[in-house]
Amino acid sequence: MTKVMTEASMSLDGYVSGPDFSGFDLLFQWYERGDVVVETADPELTFRLTEVSSTYWHRLIAETGALVVGRTLFDHVEGWGGRHPMDVPVVLLSHSVPDGWPRADAPFHVVTEGGIERAVAVARELAGDKNVVLNSGTIATQALEAGLLDEVCVDLVPVILGAGTPFFTTPANAPYTLDGPLSIAEGDRVTHLRYRVRYGER
Amino acid sequence: MTKVMTEASMSLDGYVSGPDFSGFDLLFQWYERGDVVVETADPELTFRLTEVSSTYWHRLIAETGALVVGRTLFDHVEGWGGRHPMDVPVVLLSHSVPDGWPRADAPFHVVTEGGIERAVAVARELAGDKNVVLNSGTIATQALEAGLLDEVCVDLVPVILGAGTPFFTTPANAPYTLDGPLSIAEGDRVTHLRYRVRYGER
Repeated sequence: MTKVMTEASMSLDGYVSGPDFSGFDLLFQWYERGDVVVETADPELTFRLTEVSSTYWHRLIAETGALVVGRTLFDHVEGWGGRHPMDVPVVLLSHSVPDGWPRADAPFHVVTEGGIERAVAVARELAGDKNVVLNSGTIATQALEAGLLDEVCVDLVPVILGAGTPFFTTPANAPYTLDGPLSIAEGDRVTHLRYRVRYGER
Repeated sequence: MTKVMTEASMSLDGYVSGPDFSGFDLLFQWYERGDVVVETADPELTFRLTEVSSTYWHRLIAETGALVVGRTLFDHVEGWGGRHPMDVPVVLLSHSVPDGWPRADAPFHVVTEGGIERAVAVARELAGDKNVVLNSGTIATQALEAGLLDEVCVDLVPVILGAGTPFFTTPANAPYTLDGPLSIAEGDRVTHLRYRVRYGER
C-alpha cells in the first residue's frame, strides 16, 4: 500500500529553512559527515554519509516513487533542471504553469486545479507501489489538514535557526497527534525520526 | 561545575505550550504513561513514569539546585503556592515584584534589575554545586543570547500544536549550533534529548 510521507531536515526549533533560504549549510551538514559516497541523479551533487544516515537514505530512496513539491521550492531550484536528484517523477502543485513547462524531457507534472488532493492522486498514479513523498512546509501542511499524510520523517538537526520556514505552517484543526517515533537513527549532526500521523482520535 | 540548563516538553513543531496555555494534556502525557510512581513536593501532583522517563527525571531532579522562571509562568501557576514541585529555590526574573511576594515561608527570590545575568548569578549561589535550570521560552532565550546557556534538554513529544509559545523565542544572533544529542532516551509519548550549546564557532 502506497504511503504518503514527508521528509525534511529540521532545526531543533522546527524550521526547514532559515530566513531567505539561509541555514542550509547547517541543516545539511549531515549529508557530508561520513565515508559512504552516495551519488545522486545530479552529477554535481554527491553525498558523503555516515553508515547510519546512508542506510536511512537508501531506504527512503528505494521506497519513494514520486514527489509533490510547491512552487516556492520549484522556483528556487529552477525545477532541478528537469531531473530531481532522487530521479523520480515530480508533481508541482501551483496556481499557474511555470514558463517553459512542462518539458518533453522531464517527468514533471503540473497540477493547477484540485488542490493537494489532486496532486497526491496524480503522484500516487506515478508512484505505483512505492510511496509519495511531499515537500515540507505548505505542501505537507495541506496534506496534513486534508487527512492525506501517513508518515512524517524528521531529520532533527542540533541547530537553533530562530526564524524561517517551519516544517508545518500553522495547520488548521491543530493539534495533531502522531505515533512514534517508529524508528530512531543517530547519524552525525542529525537524528532521523519517523512518525505516523494519527487521525480521528487524540 | 554548575551548569545552566533548560528543560521542557516540546511538540514536534517546537512549541512548549499551545495558544492560551493549551496543549498541556498532550505535551505532558508522558508523565502518566508508566508504572513508576514519582511523588513531587506538591501533594496533588504525582507522576506515573516509564522506567526510562523515571531514570531521566530522577537524574534531572538530583542535579537541579535552583530554577529561574519568568513572570508569565509564575503568574499562571500562582507561584506554585510558594513551593515548586521540584522543591528547590526559585528565582523569578520580572520587572516588578508580584503582590504578596516575597514570602517568609517560600524560597523564592525576585530579581527586578540586572536582567538574565543577575538572575542566573543569584540562582548559581542558591544552587551550590548543582545545576541551574531555566524556564523555556523568553528566559532560556535570554540566557542563550547572553552566552549563559550550557545545555538544552528537550522532551520531544509526537504532537503538532501548530501555534503557541516556542521553546526559543526568536533569539537574536541566530543561528546557534549545538552538540549532540549527548543522550537519547525513548519513553512512552516522549523522546528525551540532551544537547550542549556551542558558542563562538558554528
